[in-house]
Amino acid sequence: MISHRKFILDEKEIPEKWYNIQADMPNKPLPSLHPVTKQPIGPDDLAPLFPMELIKQEIAQERWIEIPEEVREVYKLWRPTPLFRATNLEKELDTPAKIYYKYEGVSPAGSHKPNTAVAQAYYNMKEGVRKLTTETGAGQWGSALAFACERFGIDLEVYMVRVSYEQKPYRKLLMNTWGAEVYSSPTDKTESGKAILAKSPNSPGSLGIAISEAVERAATSNGEKKYSLGSVLNHVLMHQTVIGLEAIKQMEKAGDYPDIVIAPLGGGSNFAGISFPFLNQKLTNGKDIRCIAVEPASCPKLTKGEFRYDFGDTVGLTPLLPMYTLGHTFVPESIHAGGLRYHGASVLVSQLLKDKLVEASAIHQLECFAAGVKFANTEGILPAPEATHGIAQVIREANKAKEEDKEKTILFNLCGHGYLDMSAYQDYFDGKLEDHELTHEELYAGLNELQTPRIER
Amino acid sequence: MISHRKFILDEKEIPEKWYNIQADMPNKPLPSLHPVTKQPIGPDDLAPLFPMELIKQEIAQERWIEIPEEVREVYKLWRPTPLFRATNLEKELDTPAKIYYKYEGVSPAGSHKPNTAVAQAYYNMKEGVRKLTTETGAGQWGSALAFACERFGIDLEVYMVRVSYEQKPYRKLLMNTWGAEVYSSPTDKTESGKAILAKSPNSPGSLGIAISEAVERAATSNGEKKYSLGSVLNHVLMHQTVIGLEAIKQMEKAGDYPDIVIAPLGGGSNFAGISFPFLNQKLTNGKDIRCIAVEPASCPKLTKGEFRYDFGDTVGLTPLLPMYTLGHTFVPESIHAGGLRYHGASVLVSQLLKDKLVEASAIHQLECFAAGVKFANTEGILPAPEATHGIAQVIREANKAKEEDKEKTILFNLCGHGYLDMSAYQDYFDGKLEDHELTHEELYAGLNELQTPRIER
Repeated sequence: MISHRKFILDEKEIPEKWYNIQADMPNKPLPSLHPVTKQPIGPDDLAPLFPMELIKQEIAQERWIEIPEEVREVYKLWRPTPLFRATNLEKELDTPAKIYYKYEGVSPAGSHKPNTAVAQAYYNMKEGVRKLTTETGAGQWGSALAFACERFGIDLEVYMVRVSYEQKPYRKLLMNTWGAEVYSSPTDKTESGKAILAKSPNSPGSLGIAISEAVERAATSNGEKKYSLGSVLNHVLMHQTVIGLEAIKQMEKAGDYPDIVIAPLGGGSNFAGISFPFLNQKLTNGKDIRCIAVEPASCPKLTKGEFRYDFGDTVGLTPLLPMYTLGHTFVPESIHAGGLRYHGASVLVSQLLKDKLVEASAIHQLECFAAGVKFANTEGILPAPEATHGIAQVIREANKAKEEDKEKTILFNLCGHGYLDMSAYQDYFDGKLEDHELTHEELYAGLNELQTPRIER
Repeated sequence: MISHRKFILDEKEIPEKWYNIQADMPNKPLPSLHPVTKQPIGPDDLAPLFPMELIKQEIAQERWIEIPEEVREVYKLWRPTPLFRATNLEKELDTPAKIYYKYEGVSPAGSHKPNTAVAQAYYNMKEGVRKLTTETGAGQWGSALAFACERFGIDLEVYMVRVSYEQKPYRKLLMNTWGAEVYSSPTDKTESGKAILAKSPNSPGSLGIAISEAVERAATSNGEKKYSLGSVLNHVLMHQTVIGLEAIKQMEKAGDYPDIVIAPLGGGSNFAGISFPFLNQKLTNGKDIRCIAVEPASCPKLTKGEFRYDFGDTVGLTPLLPMYTLGHTFVPESIHAGGLRYHGASVLVSQLLKDKLVEASAIHQLECFAAGVKFANTEGILPAPEATHGIAQVIREANKAKEEDKEKTILFNLCGHGYLDMSAYQDYFDGKLEDHELTHEELYAGLNELQTPRIER
């Protein structure tokens, strides 16, 4: 029997600096382009939406950026998060692999999202912003930002995709409890929303539409409101590196080091959070380590998308980002329940994948939910549907280690629990979910429509 | 700014023994009586329902009882749980009091209940039991036992009060994920259930009925099935003492010691878990400490009930227990949403209250929910409705400390998070909840009907 399962840190060991991978990338990310002029954007272009400190962080080249004391003080409500060795799962898989997981579900909002939400709310507060807007799909990001805004006395407007708004009253309620106003998107509060409603009054909404609404509300507020995004952007990914920085210390305590680091990828912040600090050791100290981002087979931008410029939202209000994308009009099949439905991937992860410094894997949802149930039945925690993608890949790697009879060490980020998002499990148990192999037409529908600049590189 | 918020223990510091308060009680609990003969029950009377080791623990007089290694191994999935100083809440209340809370919501089932569920499943497994039955109201106990049974390869049947079964599909789903079968009680699987359904086919069920069904299923299984209870019994309370034992070590790390220990009380296991180890220090070392059990004003057995023999269930199948009770037919008003609806209190807590070694307080639900929201808005975590009772009392004591300008140290047990039980908050925010002062008739309806032995003592 293995006796040590949990590796903990004292709150004094909460990282004092975020890790900025831009300092170490062999190929720096290409500039983002203005949606109209197609010229590289500068700080002034972003100033209506974001506070200056976050804009600076977006393009910063310093390797380490100090975490403000006030942000670390809020982190103490749940950080450092525990790192577990998954001994029960290892036994169940009868694998020679050693499996570790970092557990971010202990945060008040139940996921890794507050790591950046708190930082973003703090910098907005410091620059005098009193109102923020954002969008949320499943509700994880919206509740994380509601929690963070409550801490810093900021009013928050959340545009929640209508289908989630109706299916997930508890997510909305949690945001309300933390003082946020939540609207069912599309709304009649924005031109973007009105245009959609005029065409289809019963629109179920989409993340792309909700982003358009939240951005429009901030952009047209005469500077009263700013906007906040929960993934994709460089500063968001950087804030999440507290996860991997803690994990490095905890793996040391375990007397171990990962051969493979795994995390699911929607926009990229969860994957970046756990993997970038290990990539730092790979890029600067030559550590031999594989980092694998796992996406759903129904939204396979990393494994089947194109590396080119594309918009972050459906309507085309955001800057053009150089990224792996399926096209900003791509919508995953409605049968897909496992989260991670975003059409593109963050610029930083995209460039690293292009440069073969990280790997990608796409997995169908039935394998993911089966992995999630296996995890609940061995390690106890019911994982968020998004997190099950990482677990499915872990199981693949552990089985491979068994076939090859190799003792490998695998680390993954369990980014959140599933207790507030159980309708997907309900559908899984009820046999309502299916795997669907995307046809060539479905896969390239979004890309074929794209008018955005290609990247020759 | 107070810098240290979280006091953690290494998993090596998980207690090795449970604390049995029976060893230190100045007046030992009176014997439980057979429901028919009214004579003190012996081990043989309980053998059809419980494994022998738990029956021994029920009447054990040793002060310390060893926790089996296999149980501690499962505890490691979430124990030791963190102890926090509630600095944000202190600031919000502007109180000289120092407030600490032990947080049990980090367990896989989200509450303190797995502490005993794991122990009970283990002892059943050791004695060859392969099937257990139990009841659940809100679903917290059922999911804790489902998790525990899954760990030890035991099949579990859960009788879930129909109204919860219908309102809380996610609780049911969580139990299913951990392999339990869940039935909407009353069922047609038992004579107790059939009798109820014959009278009222649309019965919403009750905890008392569900207990009767679960007990009957075990009692009529020819020894194939045993029964498991999540609170009230002596061994259940003892298993929960890991909470207080850890808290003592953590308060030492904080360089502090509580003047007041507070917890909500339904059956008594949460209150016992945090307070009994401190009562050990009061009873054996003369420590000056107040322990306050908090009940809802709508189910005030401790503050307005009678200390006498009563049944544990509605139908009258269980032994007669010497306890504070409102009568086993008492049903809290349907407007009450805050949990803790049980008509009686555990024998151990009842005797301690009778002997003035602990105190009791009754609080109306609106004050409790307001306290819960204040806690979510300061400390981040949304508390379970049950836990809000403890928080309301903490706020009362902190306000009193402010009035008296005294620096007091208050510790409470945050027994669970509310993420799986948010419908009560929904009702609170929607203004659907009211406080109702029980009339004399309502309060004594159950007691006036009682035919059970009185206690002259």
